[in-house]
Amino acid sequence: MSEVWKKYQEENKERFLNEMMDLLRIPSISAKSENKADMKQCAEAVKAALLASGCDKAEVMETGGHPAVYGEKIIDPSKPTVLVYGHYDVQPVEPLELWNTPPFEPTIKDGKVFARGSADDKGQFYMHVKALETMVNTDTMATNIKFIIEGEEEVGSPNLGAFVAAHKDLLKADVILISDSSLLSMENPSLDTGVRGLSYIEVEVTAAARDLHSGTYGGAVANPIVILSKMIASCHDENNHITIPGFYDDVLEVSAEERELINKAPFNEQEYKDEIGIKELYGEKGFTTYERTGIRPTLELNGIWGGYTGEGAKTVLPAKATAKISARLVPNQTSEKITKLLLEHFRKIAPSCVEVNAFEHHGGEPYGTPIDSKGYQSASRALETTFGKTPIPVKGGGSIPICSVLEKELGIKIIFMGFGLDNDGLHSPNEKYNIENYYKGIETIPYFHKYFGE
Amino acid sequence: MSEVWKKYQEENKERFLNEMMDLLRIPSISAKSENKADMKQCAEAVKAALLASGCDKAEVMETGGHPAVYGEKIIDPSKPTVLVYGHYDVQPVEPLELWNTPPFEPTIKDGKVFARGSADDKGQFYMHVKALETMVNTDTMATNIKFIIEGEEEVGSPNLGAFVAAHKDLLKADVILISDSSLLSMENPSLDTGVRGLSYIEVEVTAAARDLHSGTYGGAVANPIVILSKMIASCHDENNHITIPGFYDDVLEVSAEERELINKAPFNEQEYKDEIGIKELYGEKGFTTYERTGIRPTLELNGIWGGYTGEGAKTVLPAKATAKISARLVPNQTSEKITKLLLEHFRKIAPSCVEVNAFEHHGGEPYGTPIDSKGYQSASRALETTFGKTPIPVKGGGSIPICSVLEKELGIKIIFMGFGLDNDGLHSPNEKYNIENYYKGIETIPYFHKYFGE
Repeated sequence: MSEVWKKYQEENKERFLNEMMDLLRIPSISAKSENKADMKQCAEAVKAALLASGCDKAEVMETGGHPAVYGEKIIDPSKPTVLVYGHYDVQPVEPLELWNTPPFEPTIKDGKVFARGSADDKGQFYMHVKALETMVNTDTMATNIKFIIEGEEEVGSPNLGAFVAAHKDLLKADVILISDSSLLSMENPSLDTGVRGLSYIEVEVTAAARDLHSGTYGGAVANPIVILSKMIASCHDENNHITIPGFYDDVLEVSAEERELINKAPFNEQEYKDEIGIKELYGEKGFTTYERTGIRPTLELNGIWGGYTGEGAKTVLPAKATAKISARLVPNQTSEKITKLLLEHFRKIAPSCVEVNAFEHHGGEPYGTPIDSKGYQSASRALETTFGKTPIPVKGGGSIPICSVLEKELGIKIIFMGFGLDNDGLHSPNEKYNIENYYKGIETIPYFHKYFGE
Repeated sequence: MSEVWKKYQEENKERFLNEMMDLLRIPSISAKSENKADMKQCAEAVKAALLASGCDKAEVMETGGHPAVYGEKIIDPSKPTVLVYGHYDVQPVEPLELWNTPPFEPTIKDGKVFARGSADDKGQFYMHVKALETMVNTDTMATNIKFIIEGEEEVGSPNLGAFVAAHKDLLKADVILISDSSLLSMENPSLDTGVRGLSYIEVEVTAAARDLHSGTYGGAVANPIVILSKMIASCHDENNHITIPGFYDDVLEVSAEERELINKAPFNEQEYKDEIGIKELYGEKGFTTYERTGIRPTLELNGIWGGYTGEGAKTVLPAKATAKISARLVPNQTSEKITKLLLEHFRKIAPSCVEVNAFEHHGGEPYGTPIDSKGYQSASRALETTFGKTPIPVKGGGSIPICSVLEKELGIKIIFMGFGLDNDGLHSPNEKYNIENYYKGIETIPYFHKYFGE
């Protein structure tokens, strides 16, 4: 089969790229009301592309927010069905002055397409559209394929859960396939086996009714910044282990075998440090960097403020200090339980001289894909076929709250088969997607369907 | 003499008030360049008032910044000379919407004059001008009197040191008298016997070259907010004693007698807590509230910021976090030594995973007036005469950096004889000065000169 696909893709290469770039020209920024018409236009363009690429039917569907696009190609109801999830919306482009070329005028340079949405996620979900076309036009479909391409991923998918719940039959499938993540590198292909969950809270510590003069009252009144600092400082011990009672209770013990596998991924300490400009690796004692971001929960301070933060000096004894605090969660922690634990902990450890107002922002569940599942094995074999190397299973450190929603509503597992690279600049100026990666995705995806259909 | 003064002041009461209010109408905000002409106009008005009230000469003098006003009434070079220090500049008035009446349209309500500068310091230094008039016009001068009324107190008196150094002969005197502080209350008259010094630094902790995604990197990279919080938390022990080695080395041990005297000042805990809206008293173990703000040094956090501080949630692992930290100093600590100690301490306790940029903002020396000095005793007797009660010596918690400069350049002691109240709202909207206090000051001041001249 590989020769048929290769030939078809080689012949249509240029068109595949041009079509993807046409999609990138539509400023489908979901966060901005001024782009509402662009969102509609983009959804229609996705629908048209699905139909032109071989879907039997495709539809722009209302969700309560920006529409989602559904499409399907059913070859035989008795065969396995793969549901491809993607999103056609993109992040805002500010600061515009940092872009070398306009974000919605895709520009090719050094084998890369520079444009907002090139890697996240238009370029990546469009690989699935072109893989479908390849299989349909070479008459080599091995599975039924459904598409759900939403328009609100970059604003937290507020309507997707209800949409999926309302369309369970339509979306019924055997596995969900998502290309919205990265490879370790082209030399070291990898597959994400999970994402971490999230609990995110805000803690406000108030010591007085108003800002006070630090001379008149300093020494005789509690300083909320000092109090909050002590509260924060108490949450990690000298081994960077989180000290909040019960925090680790539900953490799934990862087997020695799986830890060995995780640490097989090549890791160049100097490159890692240089890339983000840190002096030293840092984290929980007894775990490697990949383990720290993959299989261990965290407690991070995302923001803090209080008192005078302007230029120069002001001798104020602030009335209050506030922190944004979040935890990344791993199986089998749940966002609800950890959020409650954090809120109660910060209320409890506050000394009686202050008032604490602690509340939740949002959360998401951790998600894991078993590597012995058919879906994972199919993806692994597909990458092995096109890269000539078994992909390394890696744990993603981030959070994709919709994963647990999709699994819960549809009762099936998610396979993360991303073809991006960590330096694609997602959400940043000069986002790009390497053309080589785009083609590699289109080449690889049919093999996934082939193996999953076996 | 008291009858003569009383009669004169009673007859001129209304004019005394109106003149002071006229001065309040000039928006002499030293911090704002747009008020430069107002500053000049105000200086000229002060000069005119000094001449009209009995000074032999008065002059608006250049300082390199806003001008200072000098005036003098020399009755006999062999008699003691009192140098009155005050300032005609005022704080900015923002937020304007919180003022009940326009800040530069003095308004009388409930026996109080509401206006910016009413208590700080126009209304207070003008008492000395009207006391001079009283003595001159009743031919009862007991001392020579000099005035130095500056225009840059609210911006840190950047030019006063050089000005005083350049005019030592002109300003030569036996004591400096300042009314720019408060009484405990009208029922409990008091005299400040000192001010604390100040060291003020900023500490910036950098962990990475840029803000990172808290999912991708969380757990594997040092969080600068956590690091800074741990550094801050380590500076006070469980008794709120400062743990920085050497910090207390030069602190003058205050005698049991003096501590007893300090604690004689009436203190109503409930009123204190209600006034500033705190739940509990708080501070260094083993010391009372008056001791904590009067004779003990402090380490306060004046500001902190880092990461995302906007609405909602952002999953950022910040590159840096920053704090503004200041210490109030007591005799015999010096600002230079403590600033150096603080800078070195914060650099030293930072773990090797972060870079620390610590630098100084500004400082000032602590200042103390001996209560057995002739100046203090004269002030004490003056208040006793008009209040019918010996004033309580109290230690001011704030800092007036010019004190040590004045003492150093002129070699004389400073007497703080303020007639304000803690609720005057200095630097705040709706600043006010009680008319009763204004008249009480004018009544009391001649007695100071009488006793000092004896």
